[in-house]
Amino acid sequence: MTMRDITGALLIGSRDIAGERHFHAVDPATGATLEPAFADAGPAEVDQAAALAADSFPIYRATTPEQRAAFLDAIARQIEALGDALIERAALETGLPVARLTGERGRTTGQLRLFAGWIRSGGADEPRLDSPLPDRKPLPRADLRLRHIGIGPVAVFGASNFPLAFSVAGGDTASALAAGCPVIVKGHPAHPGTSVLVGRAIRAAVQEAGLPEGVFSLLTGTSHELGGALVADPRIKAVGFTGSRAGGLALCRIAANRPEPIPVFAEMSSINPVFLLPGALQARAEALATGFVASLTLGAGQFCTNPGLVIALAGAPLDRFIAGAGAAVSAATAATMLTPAIAGAYGKSVAALESHREVAEIAHGHEGGPNGCRPALFVTEAEAFLREPVLSHEVFGASSLVVRCADADDMRKVAGALEGQLTATLHLEPSDHALAGSLLPILEDKAGRILANGWPTGVEVCHAMVHGGPFPATSDPRSTSVGTLAIRRFLRPVCYQDLPEELLPAAVQAGNPLGLPRLMDGSMAPSRSGEASS
Amino acid sequence: MTMRDITGALLIGSRDIAGERHFHAVDPATGATLEPAFADAGPAEVDQAAALAADSFPIYRATTPEQRAAFLDAIARQIEALGDALIERAALETGLPVARLTGERGRTTGQLRLFAGWIRSGGADEPRLDSPLPDRKPLPRADLRLRHIGIGPVAVFGASNFPLAFSVAGGDTASALAAGCPVIVKGHPAHPGTSVLVGRAIRAAVQEAGLPEGVFSLLTGTSHELGGALVADPRIKAVGFTGSRAGGLALCRIAANRPEPIPVFAEMSSINPVFLLPGALQARAEALATGFVASLTLGAGQFCTNPGLVIALAGAPLDRFIAGAGAAVSAATAATMLTPAIAGAYGKSVAALESHREVAEIAHGHEGGPNGCRPALFVTEAEAFLREPVLSHEVFGASSLVVRCADADDMRKVAGALEGQLTATLHLEPSDHALAGSLLPILEDKAGRILANGWPTGVEVCHAMVHGGPFPATSDPRSTSVGTLAIRRFLRPVCYQDLPEELLPAAVQAGNPLGLPRLMDGSMAPSRSGEASS
Repeated sequence: MTMRDITGALLIGSRDIAGERHFHAVDPATGATLEPAFADAGPAEVDQAAALAADSFPIYRATTPEQRAAFLDAIARQIEALGDALIERAALETGLPVARLTGERGRTTGQLRLFAGWIRSGGADEPRLDSPLPDRKPLPRADLRLRHIGIGPVAVFGASNFPLAFSVAGGDTASALAAGCPVIVKGHPAHPGTSVLVGRAIRAAVQEAGLPEGVFSLLTGTSHELGGALVADPRIKAVGFTGSRAGGLALCRIAANRPEPIPVFAEMSSINPVFLLPGALQARAEALATGFVASLTLGAGQFCTNPGLVIALAGAPLDRFIAGAGAAVSAATAATMLTPAIAGAYGKSVAALESHREVAEIAHGHEGGPNGCRPALFVTEAEAFLREPVLSHEVFGASSLVVRCADADDMRKVAGALEGQLTATLHLEPSDHALAGSLLPILEDKAGRILANGWPTGVEVCHAMVHGGPFPATSDPRSTSVGTLAIRRFLRPVCYQDLPEELLPAAVQAGNPLGLPRLMDGSMAPSRSGEASS
Repeated sequence: MTMRDITGALLIGSRDIAGERHFHAVDPATGATLEPAFADAGPAEVDQAAALAADSFPIYRATTPEQRAAFLDAIARQIEALGDALIERAALETGLPVARLTGERGRTTGQLRLFAGWIRSGGADEPRLDSPLPDRKPLPRADLRLRHIGIGPVAVFGASNFPLAFSVAGGDTASALAAGCPVIVKGHPAHPGTSVLVGRAIRAAVQEAGLPEGVFSLLTGTSHELGGALVADPRIKAVGFTGSRAGGLALCRIAANRPEPIPVFAEMSSINPVFLLPGALQARAEALATGFVASLTLGAGQFCTNPGLVIALAGAPLDRFIAGAGAAVSAATAATMLTPAIAGAYGKSVAALESHREVAEIAHGHEGGPNGCRPALFVTEAEAFLREPVLSHEVFGASSLVVRCADADDMRKVAGALEGQLTATLHLEPSDHALAGSLLPILEDKAGRILANGWPTGVEVCHAMVHGGPFPATSDPRSTSVGTLAIRRFLRPVCYQDLPEELLPAAVQAGNPLGLPRLMDGSMAPSRSGEASS
């Protein structure tokens, strides 16, 4: 596949729809308009895609775990088959470096394959069987068997900051497809060409797997009307979103006010506090400064897990950290941000901090190109931070705020005043364990992931990952958008009572023909076949 | 404990609060006012209870599974220690027979003990550990460990129709407490004395277990303002509700429009369709009629799973069923309903069906006392049912509607037109399997539980139960309010990355000191102790 395969059509099932209105992507590094023009979808196209998705759902959700796994594997292969064309287009549309995008592609295909393996091993079905007790007094117990099935067609909103891993074939799409749910993606308007390339890869996998066309559609577009129509469509049963707090909340409100409310899994806003405990700061202030600035400036600071807040005790070790971090920030060059809008918002947020009377600038980096992110580092006092809610707001980009605390109690107060977060980080030495132990219960209630002696950027795709957290980090803290646990968001349990064996789905049949691990009368039966079930 | 222990105070933590406004319960069998007067709580008392709940949360959620299990066991014991006084008061306040209430008490205490056993065996923590891969290229993998913790204080709304099993110490309370969440119950105003007795039993168990007082509070009251204040309180993090569609939706809207939206698990409305397939109807129309009317009239039809809709093919076998069911309904005597308001609403709904031009009355039962539920049975044609949405609305009480279908396609159309349901039932013979097989995929998308050759009333509390379903049966089809899977509603995952062993919670420590089954690198390690975790 080459650049010439990038057409501006909407991918509605197996059909290319030209659309009536159009928009162009922009190269953020130059501000230049990129060809071709892309269809700007609206409610009419939502209706078409939703009709196909609803039609395909009964067939798709009836597939075996093996069939869905093979489909996910095929998507990974089709994405790899796009070759350099995908990376080149993504670089052009996002300003992100080729090396980063190559890594992100690996993460995206790795995620699809991990999910394929997980559902093959029964991770989506989670069957539970309770044996009948015909002789129980006063009443017999029926034969009860539970499995999980897909909730229905899912709307996925591609994120700007991960044009592959959180976009058309990203975490939300992979988990919804793994759960047996058709997906309609609203591609992010900042990278429509990348979106269409990946969308065509998924369409090819749909055809290869012999699935109904409605299992996947891609709608590119720029309007709020498009997203609103998608979430409001009665055939959509759940929503995955990564983006701004305002955007996520708007979708939550639309979903909650439908005649039939539906769940929205919105990942929105996090400043990812980093606590530098006294022993660690004393032992390695300079190394912490270097590591911190590397994490802060990675990808122009455009990570959900970017360390936007540093909390430490005032004193000479913190002064050493500030000096080192300030020097590193001063030496940093502005990297291109994803879009002019994001760069503009970043500039405004940084200017607000610069002029805030309780905040002092420590350092800023070099000016860059037209949409460059000039890194910036600020400092304030704990007392001011606790008083001024605006200092807790997310600045999307490579800006961070050091909060100077008078004592350990100040650190706990700052921790307790935080909103919900994706991550919270502790840098510590054994001498810090008592203080860390007093912070941990506070942070567990605030964040989805707690790290020690690392940096929050970089999210491993695995079974034990949580990329989620209390509001406003996400709209529902009871889930994750990364890792195999993410699949559970799009599943619902169904119980079968006294159904004849012939009518039971394979996942709960007596002979366990799918070889799934099953909970039998409250105990796990992990064997891959043939356990008796009543 | 005796009747004299029923005081009208609010139970806010360990304190009895007299309140300023008051209300009385009513004996629905006589219309008589019952003593004593009960405090009618408002926003001020919500504030006090929420403050205590928030204070207790860090301590309560840090308890071990064994400590929480012992607490649940203690609640069961304390409820049993209430003895006959509980049953007598519940009978007086609800009009339900002593035998039914005795059975319901057994279900309530059995549920607490089942949940205790389940969390002892690790069912709430669900730990997942992924081993570090320090030598992985291009980047090493960190040590990642996940466990589930309580989401925070939970508001539970007691239901009118299960004064024990879905009320103060019912399924929602048991699952929230099992998850490590403090609970504030808004007791249903129809049975405040029953509520206070059970509330005191829970308080005694809190004290026996040495837990902080804020783990449990009971607010009795009659106002929408009380419920609204509870759901709106920022310290409340989730809501459990069983009741009307209007009531559940009102709470969902309040929760969705908070500055921090929270999940509401509302169980609302279900007509529980029963499909009588041709072979079964041919073989045993009379027995089906008897079984059906017994299920319909059980508890004056006041079950969430009451069979409010019967779908069958027109013809002689259906005529036999209608004749038998009509005779049984005609012979049935009105049982007392839970409240005058419920009896009034039932009367209006039945009158609306009686006067509906597309509906014919088959039979009605005898008149009863002041709040009696006169059973009623109606019939309509599939074509009319599909055209008139009002015929799909829940009638809370012992009324049901037979839908006469011309052919199997009509039956599938009726199934496809249904709203979300708690249950769907198939009565079938082997000759019906093909038709059942064509209905099943439709019904799986409509209902949380599918039964064969049984009746939907009677919900087993076990691991494989689903008492839930698509909207409007519930507000979130991804869960159940009965069975051990209900605990998951109130849990959230937290991931620990590279934390020193000393700081890790016991559930994910290398030595597995709690002996929990854990997912190790994607495979279940069900052994009760000592697996290595690098």
